[in-house]
Amino acid sequence: MQIERLAPLESADAQSLSFLSSAKYRAQLATSQAACVIVAPALRDEAMARSVHGLSGGPACIVTPDPYLYFARLTQLWQRARRATAPAGPRIHPSAVVDALAQVDPSAVIGPLCVVERGAKIGAHTWLKSRVTVGEDCVIGARCILHSGVVIGADGFGFAPVRADAETRWEKIEQLGAVRIGDDVEIGANTCIDRGALADTVIEDGVKLDNLIQIAHNVRVGRNTAMAACVGVAGSAIIGANCTIGGGAGIAGHLTLADNVHVSAFSLVSRSLHKPGHYTGAFPLDDHASWERNAATLKQLAGLRERLRALEKAHGSESSDKAIDKN
Amino acid sequence: MQIERLAPLESADAQSLSFLSSAKYRAQLATSQAACVIVAPALRDEAMARSVHGLSGGPACIVTPDPYLYFARLTQLWQRARRATAPAGPRIHPSAVVDALAQVDPSAVIGPLCVVERGAKIGAHTWLKSRVTVGEDCVIGARCILHSGVVIGADGFGFAPVRADAETRWEKIEQLGAVRIGDDVEIGANTCIDRGALADTVIEDGVKLDNLIQIAHNVRVGRNTAMAACVGVAGSAIIGANCTIGGGAGIAGHLTLADNVHVSAFSLVSRSLHKPGHYTGAFPLDDHASWERNAATLKQLAGLRERLRALEKAHGSESSDKAIDKN
Amino acid sequence: MQIERLAPLESADAQSLSFLSSAKYRAQLATSQAACVIVAPALRDEAMARSVHGLSGGPACIVTPDPYLYFARLTQLWQRARRATAPAGPRIHPSAVVDALAQVDPSAVIGPLCVVERGAKIGAHTWLKSRVTVGEDCVIGARCILHSGVVIGADGFGFAPVRADAETRWEKIEQLGAVRIGDDVEIGANTCIDRGALADTVIEDGVKLDNLIQIAHNVRVGRNTAMAACVGVAGSAIIGANCTIGGGAGIAGHLTLADNVHVSAFSLVSRSLHKPGHYTGAFPLDDHASWERNAATLKQLAGLRERLRALEKAHGSESSDKAIDKN
Repeated sequence: MQIERLAPLESADAQSLSFLSSAKYRAQLATSQAACVIVAPALRDEAMARSVHGLSGGPACIVTPDPYLYFARLTQLWQRARRATAPAGPRIHPSAVVDALAQVDPSAVIGPLCVVERGAKIGAHTWLKSRVTVGEDCVIGARCILHSGVVIGADGFGFAPVRADAETRWEKIEQLGAVRIGDDVEIGANTCIDRGALADTVIEDGVKLDNLIQIAHNVRVGRNTAMAACVGVAGSAIIGANCTIGGGAGIAGHLTLADNVHVSAFSLVSRSLHKPGHYTGAFPLDDHASWERNAATLKQLAGLRERLRALEKAHGSESSDKAIDKN
Repeated sequence: MQIERLAPLESADAQSLSFLSSAKYRAQLATSQAACVIVAPALRDEAMARSVHGLSGGPACIVTPDPYLYFARLTQLWQRARRATAPAGPRIHPSAVVDALAQVDPSAVIGPLCVVERGAKIGAHTWLKSRVTVGEDCVIGARCILHSGVVIGADGFGFAPVRADAETRWEKIEQLGAVRIGDDVEIGANTCIDRGALADTVIEDGVKLDNLIQIAHNVRVGRNTAMAACVGVAGSAIIGANCTIGGGAGIAGHLTLADNVHVSAFSLVSRSLHKPGHYTGAFPLDDHASWERNAATLKQLAGLRERLRALEKAHGSESSDKAIDKN
Repeated sequence: MQIERLAPLESADAQSLSFLSSAKYRAQLATSQAACVIVAPALRDEAMARSVHGLSGGPACIVTPDPYLYFARLTQLWQRARRATAPAGPRIHPSAVVDALAQVDPSAVIGPLCVVERGAKIGAHTWLKSRVTVGEDCVIGARCILHSGVVIGADGFGFAPVRADAETRWEKIEQLGAVRIGDDVEIGANTCIDRGALADTVIEDGVKLDNLIQIAHNVRVGRNTAMAACVGVAGSAIIGANCTIGGGAGIAGHLTLADNVHVSAFSLVSRSLHKPGHYTGAFPLDDHASWERNAATLKQLAGLRERLRALEKAHGSESSDKAIDKN
């Protein structure tokens, strides 16, 4: 048996190595044509009992307590092998614009058409893919990956209102802080992290940010927190460690999330969350006609509650209505 | 009559050619000062009965069964004429960074400050505007347009959790797949399409994506599907052909949308949709004070339903309550 | 006393100048170690009564009717002083690609790796940071700031459907308009403003747009309107002056917002708003289990209302139900 590729269970063939990350996909295991599958001990026998076409000697498996982690490390090995065959590019691509007063570690890689401004620091083994901007005085730690189009250190959105002649103009508040990013942080394509107004915006070690995320000025994101794509975090929000934020979610400004808070996709966090847990606030999808009826009624909901209360009173039932003002 | 410009009905003048795409805008036709209007046969007489100032010989019209399509093709003609007068730029702009091992069709245009990585293929007559990245091994079909800031082939967001010392770190899963984009695809500014983990992310022929869209790893978008701006599609979602997805909508991961599914703006699709149709899930807008009352009540909604059921029971009415667990 | 830095009240030290923008933060004033604080007249005595460690002569204060505005101007002074010590870069960075037929005011600054296409105009003292695209014929006024990754003048998203062989293709409508941006406009990182189809997309004087915003073709944004990050505005929407749009909000196409309309974060405006005011439409966050119960009931809401009405009728109470069709 010779392994030519890594593949998902359902498309794997007799030259493929695959993996089973969760028992809920075990139905795919029985019919998978993978030559070899990475499995947890409990699934070893099922993995070996498969019949694989065109594979002499029968299927193999790799047994490990955490198949998904094993698979992750295998992809890294695979990638290193693949890259070893590529012609090595220059560490700082000649098309990149790196200020003479920026500090780039000799082991860092600055890709094509990146901009690294004066006073910026790029840590060891950090990789700026192509077309990344790291603004003045911003600091990126070691072993980070910044994907194409990332903008670190644009001005935070800060303006003071000036009332004059029946209109309100906006006076710019220069953003004098910077962005500090820890080690082992990965930042997805076209994501933006703004510089702080006075103090810095801070991304702690091990944070993973997907694409098209907005992190506003003076936000702090705690260790190992992960955010899916299209999340927006407003100014001065403090997010704990080991949180996960679902795609398209929003975090309002000037609030605090405890460690281990998990926010569902498309949910807006509009108050501090001091307890770990799973929070959601997304409108359930429906066919359009049903949605239309329910949405219209939703605009009368407080009134419906009053009417229900009145009926209960008339009926002599003790109202179990809770004071909503406390919610 | 000489036509100098294309213009909307309401601002057209005696040197303008305009169009009426739908009978619902016919009120604008009567007063339009356009020299000539593209109309469907039923509106020919109305178009000719207009009085246009400063136009000798009276108004003209072009009669066609599909005025909007006729107009679309006319804009293309107009654009070609306009571009013919521009000094032709080089096919691969000298500021672009195109790897020696990328394949660019001789009829393709690579704009300023684009990056085309090794192994990437750019099809015939495809146009990368400025500042577009096409990553390693990604394939773009023929007659595509990629607008400024597009990122094709950044790493998908894939990490395996590693529990250690009371915290959870994330181990990177190298993304070994690529992105394959069909023919006649248009991709809006700053939109991102991530490479697959093992298999490829696929965008089929004729797909149209607006600006600032996120397409995660291993997604498949079916033929001629169109998405408005700011949509996010999570990993491994399979979207059918001829779908339309409204602006700011989200599609959760690992689910399937049938052909001809239409999702309203701002709606989150959190389950598979196996039937064609129109789906919605957006909170209706209200004045803030009303919203506040209704939103507070919404957090008691399941309780209200229980109270209503209790009242019905006390009243002897047969409850028409449906089992909600099945929804 | 020598001031070395501007700092927030809570982290200020005896070399810091700080400010109190609102009486609601006055608790922080009492313990602040700032050498000097900018305050409104009513807070002068509190500011002077503080005890600051290591500051000979006691604390100072600057008294002004609008401390936040004073602070904004101070940041500008500070920034100018800081930049004065930096080596001046070239006005048009040599890595920028500026078409010979673009007009750039001699006082404008075009940063690294920007693209300014033919026919574009860049006004006096306007600053394109790095990696900004200004498309053909687009006009940027005076004293504007465009942050990294901004795309002005990508094609609007316009296609005419073509039905053929049981599928619907999309025929491109060339976007023949441009973008016109007034004076004193600031545009955040990776924000996109599309060119108009026939007429222009217009951003009036003094508008402030945060990061990752989408402005579609033929939109008009009125004077001094401000939008937080991740907002999407669909085609042909007309937004008044002095509006504020919260982060992640959406404005549907072809509608009108009056002056002084304020839209909350994450709210979708799906109809015109002719009256000034504060509008909201976001799902309230809850713990996931509660959300699940309430969301399931929400899909039966119109039915609950019918049942309540039936009970009221049976009970002889006059229904106060409003006709929802009018809402």
